[in-house]
Formats: sequence, C-alpha cells, structure tokens
Amino acid sequence: MPSDRLGRLRRLLREGNWSAAALMPGPNLYYLTGLSFHLMERPVLGLFPVEGRPRLIVPRLEQEKARSSAVDAKVFDFGEDEASRAEAFGRGLSGVVPAGGRVAVEPLRLRFFELGLIGSAAPGIRLEPADGIWADLRSKKEPDEVEAMRRAVQMAQVALEAALARIRVGMTEREFATELTLDLYRAGSDPELPFAPIVASGPNSAMPHAVPTDRRLQSGDLLIVDWGASVRGYFSDLTRTFALGDVDPELERIHRLVVQANSAGRDAVRPSATCASVDAAARQVIESAGYGAAFPHRTGHGLGLEAHEPPFIRGDNPVVLEPGMTFTVEPGVYLSGRGGVRIEDNIVVTEAGADTLSDFPRELRRIG
Amino acid sequence: MPSDRLGRLRRLLREGNWSAAALMPGPNLYYLTGLSFHLMERPVLGLFPVEGRPRLIVPRLEQEKARSSAVDAKVFDFGEDEASRAEAFGRGLSGVVPAGGRVAVEPLRLRFFELGLIGSAAPGIRLEPADGIWADLRSKKEPDEVEAMRRAVQMAQVALEAALARIRVGMTEREFATELTLDLYRAGSDPELPFAPIVASGPNSAMPHAVPTDRRLQSGDLLIVDWGASVRGYFSDLTRTFALGDVDPELERIHRLVVQANSAGRDAVRPSATCASVDAAARQVIESAGYGAAFPHRTGHGLGLEAHEPPFIRGDNPVVLEPGMTFTVEPGVYLSGRGGVRIEDNIVVTEAGADTLSDFPRELRRIG
Repeated sequence: MPSDRLGRLRRLLREGNWSAAALMPGPNLYYLTGLSFHLMERPVLGLFPVEGRPRLIVPRLEQEKARSSAVDAKVFDFGEDEASRAEAFGRGLSGVVPAGGRVAVEPLRLRFFELGLIGSAAPGIRLEPADGIWADLRSKKEPDEVEAMRRAVQMAQVALEAALARIRVGMTEREFATELTLDLYRAGSDPELPFAPIVASGPNSAMPHAVPTDRRLQSGDLLIVDWGASVRGYFSDLTRTFALGDVDPELERIHRLVVQANSAGRDAVRPSATCASVDAAARQVIESAGYGAAFPHRTGHGLGLEAHEPPFIRGDNPVVLEPGMTFTVEPGVYLSGRGGVRIEDNIVVTEAGADTLSDFPRELRRIG
Repeated sequence: MPSDRLGRLRRLLREGNWSAAALMPGPNLYYLTGLSFHLMERPVLGLFPVEGRPRLIVPRLEQEKARSSAVDAKVFDFGEDEASRAEAFGRGLSGVVPAGGRVAVEPLRLRFFELGLIGSAAPGIRLEPADGIWADLRSKKEPDEVEAMRRAVQMAQVALEAALARIRVGMTEREFATELTLDLYRAGSDPELPFAPIVASGPNSAMPHAVPTDRRLQSGDLLIVDWGASVRGYFSDLTRTFALGDVDPELERIHRLVVQANSAGRDAVRPSATCASVDAAARQVIESAGYGAAFPHRTGHGLGLEAHEPPFIRGDNPVVLEPGMTFTVEPGVYLSGRGGVRIEDNIVVTEAGADTLSDFPRELRRIG
C-alpha cells in the first residue's frame, strides 16, 4: 500500500509545483511510512522529494525504527550533541531541493525548533504551508481505513455501555472519565486514545471543550460524554448527552432539538453535497427554534488518523463531499450556567449517500 | 500560588530584557494559569507582558474555560471563521510589545501556524526562542509538585506489579502494554498518561524507543517495560528490564552492568554536581566494561509537567544541580538483534543529596 500512497503524494506535489514535502512525526508520515515517533525535544523530519528516495532525519536511538519504514528511505541519524544534529540536518537536506524550490510543510506540526534547524542547514529553502495536499492525500479513506474506524466506533460504544452500568450520582466527573477510559482499553482500543474522554456535568456541560473536574454528578444534571477509541491509529469520536434523574424542561427541549439537528445534518450527507450544506442543515434546525446563538461551533470535522482533520463541516467551507470521506456530525446547544447538549456521530460518505458508523441510541436516557 | 509564579516569570523576562512571553497550550501555560487546552487546529495563545494584565487569545468555545484562569487575564475570543480569528489576534497582540521589543517563545511548541498568525497581526514583533526561561521557571519543584510526582511513581509501581501477575509467554507486546495501561488507570492515574507504555521484547528491546508490536513474548527474551503515571499533570517515568525464563549469559551480564550504572548515576546526584558529572558517573561504568558504544543515549532528562524537560543529564550539559530539581537516571545497553536493558528511576535533588522516588526492585527478575 505505501508505494501507491507515495506515488499519490508525488503527483500532488508535482501538480502544486512543489519540490518536496517536509513532514513531522504524525499522521502524514505514518500514512506514508508506517512509522510513529513520540516527538519531544529530539527532532525527526521526513523529506519526500518529487523524485528520488525519501529521506528520514532521526536521532540515533530511532535509527533502527527508521530502517523499518514501509517506503525505502535513506536514513540520516544524529547523536545527542548539537553539532552532530546540525550535521545530519545539513547532509539530509543537501541536494533535495533545487535553488528557489518550494517545500510543502504542515503548519499545525512544524515547530519553531525545526524551522530553525532547517533554516540553518539550508538557508535558501522556501517552506510554505500546504494544507490542501494533506487533505487530498488522506481525506478519502480506503476500505481498510474505514473498517478500522468502524471497529473503533464499535469499541467506543461497547465501552460506554459498560461504564454506564457503574455510573451513580455522587461520583465525580473525573472518576467516571477514568471508568470509561478503563472500559475503552478493555474493549480493545490502542493505547493512544484519540483524546482523554470528556465528561461534563451540570453547568460544566455548557462548556463545549470542558475537561473532567472533581465536580460530583447530581440529580437534575445533564451529562455530556465525548469519547473515542483507536484501532491501528484510526479514531472514533462520539458524544452522547444523558440526564441524571429529572432535568429542567428546557434542557429536555434542547436535547430533542439537538437530536433533530444531528439527524438533519447526517441526512444531508451525500456525494456532491458541500461541507457548508451539511452545516446549514444541522444549524437551521437549531436556529429556527431560536437557539442559534447557543450553537457556537461548527457542525463537525474530518476524522481518521487525526481526531480533527479535513474536511471541516463549517458554513464557510465549499469543499464538495466525495465517497470515502469520513467526518463527525456534532451539533450542540449550550445554556451558560445551566447545561448543554451535544450529540456526535461518525459518518462515511458512500457512493449511494452516507453510512453512519455509530448507532448508540440518541434519545435522552435517564441514568444514575 | 500562581501569582507568585507570574511574578517569577516577570522577573525572568526583565532579567533577559524581554518585553513579553508568548505561550502555547502546554506545561508553561498550565503552570501559570492552571488551564489545559487540547490543541489542534484552533490556536490558543497566552501573552504575558512584563507589565500589565496577561492576555489569552482563544477560540470562542474555550472562552468560559479561559475565564477560569488562576491569574487575572484579559480574554480575546474568536469564532469559527478566519476573519474573526485574525481580528482577535490583532486586538490581542495590540499594545503588548513596544516597537522592537523581543518576545520569548517556546521553540518546541510554537508552530508554523501560530507564527503566521502572529506575523500577520503584529508584523514588527521579534519572536525568539527562550528555553532558559522555561527551565528556570519550572525546574526547581515546589514541595507539592514533588509530592504529586511521588504519588505518580507509587501508582506506576503498583500498576506494574499488578500487570506482571498476568504476564505470560505467548502474549503480544501490545497485549501486555494494554494490561499495564489498564492497571495504571486502576491505580489512579490521570487520564492523560505521560506516554503510552513501551513494552519491547527480544530483539525489539534493542531499540531504545521501541513501540509495542504484535510480537509474542518468548522464553529467552529480555523484556523492557518503560511506563509512567500522571497525578495532577505531574508525571512518573520508570523503566525495568525482565527476563522471560533463562536468557543468554551476555544479556544477564549487561543487565548487571546497567544496574551498576544506574546506581552510580543516582549516587552522583547532589547539589553542586553538574548534569555532565551524573552522566559521566553512569557512563563510566558501561564504558569501562567495553559497552560504551552500546549506550547511545544520554543518561536522563528532567521530569515534571513534561515527560522530557530540563535539566537534561548529558555529557555536554554544565548545568549545576539544585535542590528541587527532578529528573530521570536511565542508562541502557542495547545489543542490536539480540536484546537491550534499560533501568530508569526518578530522582529529586535535596539539600542533603538526593532522594530516589522509585524503589521497584532493579535486579534481574524472571517472569512469565
């Protein structure tokens, strides 16, 4: 598989008149080489010229791993001292890019640190952001990628059902997040989860990006659970909102509304629809009920080797959906100080329309 | 606590003639504000001018969280569109830095993406790496920070003992890594582990940064386990090496050698010793036995809110140790294709010398 992926990268580079791509550890490098690195203070850089062998610049203690790359790459390794590192960057970057050549980089990954190392080793090099290439390279999933995501969804669903069997009023958000994490691993998730589960109760559920706290679950709370599993590096990312005992009628009403918006968004997914039209379909349900200002985020984001990746399901995104694209649909309504609702599913675009990978019930369930 | 931390940051900035610090989500921002963000494609920037209120530039869906900052900060939020984001960066950066002022950045965190946003909003601004400031700010731990690390060490030790009770020949590395991860959570670790446990068996143990594979544990293997837990954001990071049944006598010999090197390194830790002298003490044991070339990495790294942070225990690091500094001592010997040994402990420098936080037995133990 990786040789075809490398060929596709080279075509994309050629079409954009790039000389090479410079990749950091992360999903693009993994997609092309099968290699994962835990990136910290030792730099790792993958260079993919339009022609010729790819190159990997790695710390010496990663060189055995680098040699197991799925594409044939020349490895430049360095020791623990700065001189050896500068020398490896110098040799590794030498002759890759013609004078004035443009190198495609990942703006969300390349750091000030590597920019400095590259700038010192190859002062004339022009590094430019190239988000479009990474989206084109990975956004249409191959069948085995969709299969991994489907399994990651199933694992996540099994894990939540198991954890819910032990939930109770008086437990803290963090305690329940830990229970759910345990169940994700019991269900078979890879060790690197897409993100630590979000468990947000009562007023905390009104914060879309809440982090679990020591707040204790109380009767009358809404409870948002946003969680996912990982299979061979591919992620699921789901959200459900529950009621602890009886909740305020307005909170019940916004839950029904978000179920409708989620459904409307998913129903709008098909080849030739745009990201903007999916966003509009979900948003319109919430706006027409008068809660538009309480839905402050986009409707969804691409999902795969990254927890957030293209295509982004936003009102200003004209990208046309194609079979194989995978993303979330996750409308929400948040009433500050009172509570919030979000319902998130994972979708793959098919030739016929769309397939929702997740089937965990969406209607308001009373727990605890 | 955070007001004193902010005061220390300001003193460090003043001493270095900086106008401000620009911080990304991560340990420095958490240390100063208590805020954690899961960073992806929505930028978050903390600005800490030498005088005046700190500023936080955040996506709108993080604004409630930003307002819970432990230091009084002015929040600039933006919506889901690029115009609103550019506008928030423009307002947030306006008036923070005088013309020609230098802004201290984190080279291992600041990305090409934020560089572009800052450059567009404040074209005259001079961003420069300032690793020394971050080391000075956080490397001497307060007692409650050491206490969190001590608990993270204890949790990790309890978890490994529990997981070892279930290990057996025929299990894969990944299966054992999952068991250990489960036990880390059972022991009470925060959901965000310092890193996914490394489990490397047989020839894989000769790769210092191996990732768990589907290789099955075999009799005759060395087995490296490198793992840690997290308590309130503070990490432990330990390594032990085990034997599955009887192993080659040379592998036993390098294990004894690494135990000695680990002990020599730890014994060298005291106030006024240098990082280089600790590295030399451990390395000398391995070199004098003729295995110097098989120990390709530094002896250790600082540990705290980051899994790797200053001080780095390297032969070329003249930094003088001071009470409160916390780091690993982790010599190793790796015989390519055959097996490797690493033994890693976590140390805090004390007034009297040093305290090893970890007491999991180091001698070669036969398991499985």
